[in-house]
Amino acid sequence: MENLTVFFVSDHTGVTAEAVGKSLLSQFRGLTYKTLTIPFIDTPEKASDIAKRVQNAAPALIISTLTDPDMRAILQNGKAPVFDVFEAFSGPLAAFLGVSPAAMAGQTHGMSNTYDTRMDAVNFALSVDDGLNPEKLGEADLILVGVSRAGKTPVSLYLALQYGKKAANYPLTPDDLDASTLPEVLLEHKAKLRGLTLAPERLAQIRNERLPGSRYASLENCRKEIQAVEALLKANGVLLIDSSRRSVEEIAALIVHGS
Amino acid sequence: MENLTVFFVSDHTGVTAEAVGKSLLSQFRGLTYKTLTIPFIDTPEKASDIAKRVQNAAPALIISTLTDPDMRAILQNGKAPVFDVFEAFSGPLAAFLGVSPAAMAGQTHGMSNTYDTRMDAVNFALSVDDGLNPEKLGEADLILVGVSRAGKTPVSLYLALQYGKKAANYPLTPDDLDASTLPEVLLEHKAKLRGLTLAPERLAQIRNERLPGSRYASLENCRKEIQAVEALLKANGVLLIDSSRRSVEEIAALIVHGS
Repeated sequence: MENLTVFFVSDHTGVTAEAVGKSLLSQFRGLTYKTLTIPFIDTPEKASDIAKRVQNAAPALIISTLTDPDMRAILQNGKAPVFDVFEAFSGPLAAFLGVSPAAMAGQTHGMSNTYDTRMDAVNFALSVDDGLNPEKLGEADLILVGVSRAGKTPVSLYLALQYGKKAANYPLTPDDLDASTLPEVLLEHKAKLRGLTLAPERLAQIRNERLPGSRYASLENCRKEIQAVEALLKANGVLLIDSSRRSVEEIAALIVHGS
Repeated sequence: MENLTVFFVSDHTGVTAEAVGKSLLSQFRGLTYKTLTIPFIDTPEKASDIAKRVQNAAPALIISTLTDPDMRAILQNGKAPVFDVFEAFSGPLAAFLGVSPAAMAGQTHGMSNTYDTRMDAVNFALSVDDGLNPEKLGEADLILVGVSRAGKTPVSLYLALQYGKKAANYPLTPDDLDASTLPEVLLEHKAKLRGLTLAPERLAQIRNERLPGSRYASLENCRKEIQAVEALLKANGVLLIDSSRRSVEEIAALIVHGS
């Protein structure tokens, strides 16, 4: 199909419709298409506008998360097929549960009822980033440890934003590694430690972008630091996750749900 | 239904299954249930283990994003109903597109093909947080402006992690507001500015958690700063978003997709 346009339509942010849609479409190798995300479609007027835009963009399809059947009906009146998560599942789910759903547009899609928890966790992650304020480690749910540039900061921020986890991160420096014991400040929090490691080649590449040609970035030094960190963390029974081939989302899911 | 357990099962992180499931279940007011997220189910052995756990947890239901029909079939052999996004949509989508899907477990769910872009954006957001390194503002896709504690930092991090946008944030201080022109360093980037504002009562509450009883946190001062910021940004044609009743995700979606 040539010149296909895919509309992700939602009565909330559109993030779930995008995630569902991109997963589904990635199954069709070689398919090319452009996408448009249309969030906050929560009135018949907005739905009618979108229906017109979709019609003008033919060939097109709609992947949507619209809680209100009336909004879905407006889109379904057009020629483009509508793949809606609520349309597909609300009925069967209601039949299984023996109760009826109530349309509540945009209220809770993907939004945690622990919103303040997540915001507090973001502020916490920033306040203890990179070993700052170690006196606050007692408050942490988790402490990510690893060599410099192992990917601790983005993982700690994602853990905060997505899961509301207070994740500190603490870099193990060459001095820490020479001592061959965990830094004093981490010892009392051993159960909270989670290790991030990665392939020395990948670490050298990342560090070379920052400090090209430095000893810090050399493959030999990266290899030495990573060997030392892995040995130290294994000796202390700390879970080690290899970040070389995993995304931040994948690492966070492994940490939260166990591996 | 009493003692219901809902399993979110995925061959990837489970974030999409959770988002879909929570949206769906939030439509059933008053329903109580516990949830379990089971990510990385990508072998028949893991799927069989989960099928047993689900059976032991009856009454239970499964909401899943499993690309591989074989994995789905293993779960569907149990008594608990399975609501799977790929099961529901892959067939109809293939029929519309006229091509067959290829099962590619866990490869791309929700994961952007712009992964390095997103990580660079996180590092950028951190490096320019709270007005740091203003010489880098030229690199920014967007610059969030507003009074101190208006919620700029979490929004800039979410814009980076979710959308790969390089979002700087710059606080407008009382001195900036007295000057009644935009700070020099922002003037040349006017088209990139997006304003965050909020109700003075909410701002006072947030600031009082940080510096209780201070002039900075007083309702009178918050009201004055917000009036001045709103006037300044309106005079300069900057889009203003009220963050009082919106989540970080909602603000980010408004910024990315327009309001």
